[in-house]
Amino acid sequence: MVDRDDRTADRMLVAGAEGGVLVFGITPPRLSTTPERIREITAATLARLDFLDVDALALYDIADESDRNPAERPFPYLPTIDPAVYHAEYLGGWNRPAVIYRCVGKYTEAELRTWLQMADTDRVLSVFVGASSKGKAVRTGLSEAQALRLDARPDLLLGGVAIAERPEEHQRLLAKHQAGCAYFISQVVYNPDAAKSMVSDYYYACRERQLEPKPVLFTLSVCGSVKTLAFLKWLGVDVPRWLENSLRHADDTLAESYQHCLANARDLIAFCRKLGMPFGFLVESVSIRRVEIEASVALAAELGRLLGRGRPSA
Amino acid sequence: MVDRDDRTADRMLVAGAEGGVLVFGITPPRLSTTPERIREITAATLARLDFLDVDALALYDIADESDRNPAERPFPYLPTIDPAVYHAEYLGGWNRPAVIYRCVGKYTEAELRTWLQMADTDRVLSVFVGASSKGKAVRTGLSEAQALRLDARPDLLLGGVAIAERPEEHQRLLAKHQAGCAYFISQVVYNPDAAKSMVSDYYYACRERQLEPKPVLFTLSVCGSVKTLAFLKWLGVDVPRWLENSLRHADDTLAESYQHCLANARDLIAFCRKLGMPFGFLVESVSIRRVEIEASVALAAELGRLLGRGRPSA
Repeated sequence: MVDRDDRTADRMLVAGAEGGVLVFGITPPRLSTTPERIREITAATLARLDFLDVDALALYDIADESDRNPAERPFPYLPTIDPAVYHAEYLGGWNRPAVIYRCVGKYTEAELRTWLQMADTDRVLSVFVGASSKGKAVRTGLSEAQALRLDARPDLLLGGVAIAERPEEHQRLLAKHQAGCAYFISQVVYNPDAAKSMVSDYYYACRERQLEPKPVLFTLSVCGSVKTLAFLKWLGVDVPRWLENSLRHADDTLAESYQHCLANARDLIAFCRKLGMPFGFLVESVSIRRVEIEASVALAAELGRLLGRGRPSA
Repeated sequence: MVDRDDRTADRMLVAGAEGGVLVFGITPPRLSTTPERIREITAATLARLDFLDVDALALYDIADESDRNPAERPFPYLPTIDPAVYHAEYLGGWNRPAVIYRCVGKYTEAELRTWLQMADTDRVLSVFVGASSKGKAVRTGLSEAQALRLDARPDLLLGGVAIAERPEEHQRLLAKHQAGCAYFISQVVYNPDAAKSMVSDYYYACRERQLEPKPVLFTLSVCGSVKTLAFLKWLGVDVPRWLENSLRHADDTLAESYQHCLANARDLIAFCRKLGMPFGFLVESVSIRRVEIEASVALAAELGRLLGRGRPSA
């Protein structure tokens, strides 16, 4: 891949205030994968992304969240490579920023501090994710991790998770904002009404406190099967009944969900632009089925067009 | 007003399966109004409606619903003329169907039976409304009234109330459908997602039982002030937080709510057409302020255009 621009982490967020940020999210390969196979998978991923004009690649940190939901996980939990390790060892060919997720409870403070000190803050942003339930034992809590970053590496752009399904989520966003978060990434959005209410409450709460609201990136993910739908619901995604009915009765669930994702994106773009709220999108596939991944890439491309981007010049 | 068409009650509902029904709703004048003033008000109302190509005029039966909500009613309850009396005595100039609401608990079975036997079923439809709370004393219950109609006047087209905010509302719609309801009229819709879920659940439940779904008319009402917003919420209307924020912060609440009503109508039209669900709209003003009534008339005119109607030929 040629070095085609000088996009850096902080410039990415400026896009949120201008036309909208666009990020593509992936889960690193499973821990059990051989290095050779990881290189093949990575090359295929980068080849797909080469067609997209995204601002950054997000790398998830997968934790076993079975404590969060007593129901059986529709897809099994399989440990994956640490996203920081995956970025350092396999993603040298990616010349734009990476958003590295950190489930902070998995790491000791010393491990987090070392990583923070080593990070190339021009090319790396992070999102700190707290415990998936109150009872979960953690090595480092979210507030400790936020304080650690402020102390060890305040120039690392930190993001926070936004879950529109939770009541009073805007209060959590304000707290994260005041703890140094420069942006937010939502849970997968299948109910734009809830996302709009969260963003609206956050926007007006900022205005009252004379704070500049930080960009909220809405996560969109297609759904190609009833099993993926079950997984989205297991993850806590609120799927309106009419939308669930439409997916269950569709001849082509994937095509139907793709159209819903696009309609939701249009709704959210119009809403944020009217409000004056900086925003963006993260597109991911919660399933590893090839058709769903390819539909995600197509969705990201179409979002790029909706946000007024052309195909990047090589 | 000239007799400009031969629209009858049953033809009105056919429109629901074709392009969408359009009804305008009004509350009869207060009981304390003098006959002369009632004639003036009625003439002004009919002059406004003369510009609209609506299928019917709905006349509400206002009950004191203070039992339904312990909070103070933002607008005081004032008894109004019985809609059947108002229709018979003052609306001779209205030559299209009228949808006469009946809060059945207010009447004895004998009163209802007499009215049913007298009704001109070419020009009159009804909507039976049950008690506003379980504890309320009623002269006739909803099931009794439905049975009475089946016995005394099965050719009177009967409608039922649809409240999308209630869980499992589609089960109530099915029960009303099976008790003879030929259409439904929703509570005021400020949350199209809830309305879509109710309609979707009802549609698929009908399909499972090999029933033809009956048209659902969505009620739209503009909101010109924070007081009207409070009244809508008192009535049980679910207003999404983002929409409430946008109304509270708007420079012009009425214009803002008008745009939301239109956007919701577009959403519901597209949804019902895609699903193949017969539908329509009822436009009313929950407030008696002149600017809100005039905005309602403008909204009904614009809905007529959205439904593909022209200005009626005189």
